[in-house]
Amino acid sequence: MDKNVIHLGVAGFGTVGTGLLKLLSANKDWIYRRLGKKVEVKTILVKDIYKKREFLPPKGIKFTDNMHDIIDDPEIDIVVELIGGTTIARELIKKAILAKKHVVTANKAILAENGRELFELASIQNTALYFEASVGGGIPIIQTLKENISGNKIKSLTGILNGTANFILTKMSQEKLTFENALKIAQEKGFAEADPTLDIEGIDAAHKLIILIMLAYGQNYPINKLTIEGISSIDPYDIQMAKEFGYNIKLIGQVKERSGYLQAGIFPALVPNKHMLAKIDGPFNAILLEGNGVGPIMLYGQGAGDLPTGSAVLSDIMAIVRTTTYNNTGFSNDLIEEAKILEDRYTSYCHYFRFQVEDRPGVLAILAGIMGERNISIAQVVQRQNSQNKYVPVVFLTHKAQLKNVKDAIEEIDKLSFVHPGTKHYRILT
Amino acid sequence: MDKNVIHLGVAGFGTVGTGLLKLLSANKDWIYRRLGKKVEVKTILVKDIYKKREFLPPKGIKFTDNMHDIIDDPEIDIVVELIGGTTIARELIKKAILAKKHVVTANKAILAENGRELFELASIQNTALYFEASVGGGIPIIQTLKENISGNKIKSLTGILNGTANFILTKMSQEKLTFENALKIAQEKGFAEADPTLDIEGIDAAHKLIILIMLAYGQNYPINKLTIEGISSIDPYDIQMAKEFGYNIKLIGQVKERSGYLQAGIFPALVPNKHMLAKIDGPFNAILLEGNGVGPIMLYGQGAGDLPTGSAVLSDIMAIVRTTTYNNTGFSNDLIEEAKILEDRYTSYCHYFRFQVEDRPGVLAILAGIMGERNISIAQVVQRQNSQNKYVPVVFLTHKAQLKNVKDAIEEIDKLSFVHPGTKHYRILT
Repeated sequence: MDKNVIHLGVAGFGTVGTGLLKLLSANKDWIYRRLGKKVEVKTILVKDIYKKREFLPPKGIKFTDNMHDIIDDPEIDIVVELIGGTTIARELIKKAILAKKHVVTANKAILAENGRELFELASIQNTALYFEASVGGGIPIIQTLKENISGNKIKSLTGILNGTANFILTKMSQEKLTFENALKIAQEKGFAEADPTLDIEGIDAAHKLIILIMLAYGQNYPINKLTIEGISSIDPYDIQMAKEFGYNIKLIGQVKERSGYLQAGIFPALVPNKHMLAKIDGPFNAILLEGNGVGPIMLYGQGAGDLPTGSAVLSDIMAIVRTTTYNNTGFSNDLIEEAKILEDRYTSYCHYFRFQVEDRPGVLAILAGIMGERNISIAQVVQRQNSQNKYVPVVFLTHKAQLKNVKDAIEEIDKLSFVHPGTKHYRILT
Repeated sequence: MDKNVIHLGVAGFGTVGTGLLKLLSANKDWIYRRLGKKVEVKTILVKDIYKKREFLPPKGIKFTDNMHDIIDDPEIDIVVELIGGTTIARELIKKAILAKKHVVTANKAILAENGRELFELASIQNTALYFEASVGGGIPIIQTLKENISGNKIKSLTGILNGTANFILTKMSQEKLTFENALKIAQEKGFAEADPTLDIEGIDAAHKLIILIMLAYGQNYPINKLTIEGISSIDPYDIQMAKEFGYNIKLIGQVKERSGYLQAGIFPALVPNKHMLAKIDGPFNAILLEGNGVGPIMLYGQGAGDLPTGSAVLSDIMAIVRTTTYNNTGFSNDLIEEAKILEDRYTSYCHYFRFQVEDRPGVLAILAGIMGERNISIAQVVQRQNSQNKYVPVVFLTHKAQLKNVKDAIEEIDKLSFVHPGTKHYRILT
């Protein structure tokens, strides 16, 4: 950009907006040394301009509840969309691009659902549509995929993409808590929202994975084709059993490429202690990926929070200021294809099962037989005595087996008279 | 760049050059989809054009031993410098920039020693001088510092910057080997060179740290002012003792900012098991940094090897092709200041000591007294029986204490009649 002062219009003034304003103020001189230009917020769009706010921005910034005060202001160069949701935010982003303004957004939902349309529009208008803050907070995963390793073919990408879920699972594991109690603590500490559905049911992670798939493969993976399993039904018993076997249970987002087809999903999985992702505790995020050049790399950091996410927004702003050639998706002409999908059920993993069975002779043989018929080969079995209940837990760890066969086996086993239905099943990362 | 085919001149055709050529060939169509342009090697500069080579590049590429075949060729857009060293490489880079060619280099020594001069020249010529491959192989640390977190003030940066040293220390730790035996294995596996001095004495890591300091702080830290300690004198006994206390010994590169001054050094240190860097094993590298916005982030991957380093070179090439505005250092006008340095000896760490003392009453009290006089407060002590030797080892772990006081204490203690000189001392990361 040629101007000496860059003016921002910031839409939405919650956690991330506050973080951005704090950083712009604390690092003002430093940002000037980096860019040789000043970056200033001119206008902030909010729903209620009279709302009391804990953090007060510097004087001179105009508050408005009319988005046209941003879109129609010729002095505003970059629109920062931090409203969230997919209605007003979408309207704002479209109108901003049509007004030839650059857009920075932290909105994973809108990119996962309307990304293609918006990137096409930005490509036509030759404007930037940047979104480093949409995945992994301050972790530089978006630019890494768009730029650094864009010459690599990505074999797989595996991430801990939701800090709330990871915080809950860490608490359950370290303090032997139930899901409900761990969730309560997460809410008290501000790591989970009052309605935690998006985080604990894997939807937030799904939006992020779809964005990462677009960047890694140039493919549009519709969210309704993605397997999405959350963590709310995870039993502390399985977390402890997994530990005994040398695993941590984590909510994983994964995509693998096999012969040109993508296999992707969000699911809880047993992660072996030696795996880099097993070591990611608390509200942290990490993305491990494997390229055909770079090999395995991992990026780790805080997946949320005012300053980390504000830092990601700031990085986009600075990238836009630095250049005149915008790289929105990492593909020439932002050409995103429809995804070639291999259904999740045809993918193979190692597996963890916990059956609840009546403790009588021959039971193990029957279970093993049903699995054997479906090419599920057993690696380890543990059966524990439990005199208090009618049913005792039997845990199987298997070698690699197709998910379809696994689901079929569970369905058959859960119908057996001596089996308590509701078998627990998790994939195992290798 | 406006051209449809980008021509490279590659100087040097060893490990990294081979990796680059392999990637350009294997990912040819993918790179085209990313850029909408072809990237082709036109000329390769080598010392001996008749040398037998294991990897043969595609036909049509010209081999030459005359650098002017690259510099004076108007068709060549980007010069890739992979010669290494600081003589011919420096001449080539300067001449290439003067000929208005963009330069990509993996040469950490030249950037650490002549970086300022070369960046100034590139700034005047408005050409790119990119160097992602110079630190951390395929790990995207250079772009992360130049771009993503460039709006952050960096509080500290701590890295495992040399894969050879980390491989040796991992072997020593896991298999209880001596340094000499671990080095031998590293050499057999190709992780260490015949003359391993640069790697094991910390010089390679020092070059890398100086580059990272330039990018993080915009300061030129002269290598002769940097504390550089290697790993060749590390005793397996201390590695095992550290383990018992819950630490791994790693070769660390670290810079911390305190009130505008930088403290930096390369040194072996005890890293607590819970620290992210304690988990980095084998030939891997990792850089953990803390920004005032992003908080802690860590980047992890292979620090060397043909394809990972080739991938980093490729990322620079693609970044240059994508833009017309070059960001070489991450600072406006590439303005690098002289470093404001706080001497290493005035910095505080926790410390590990192993004294060899005669086993007789009062010895511990004397050692503790000398330390107490210098404000070195002891956190843990272990004394082991050892009937075979005249001297028994006494290990102290201390709270934070200034390095100067620590060195003074060691000097005094090593002079005591009942102490065997050659006390082992390592810093402890917290």
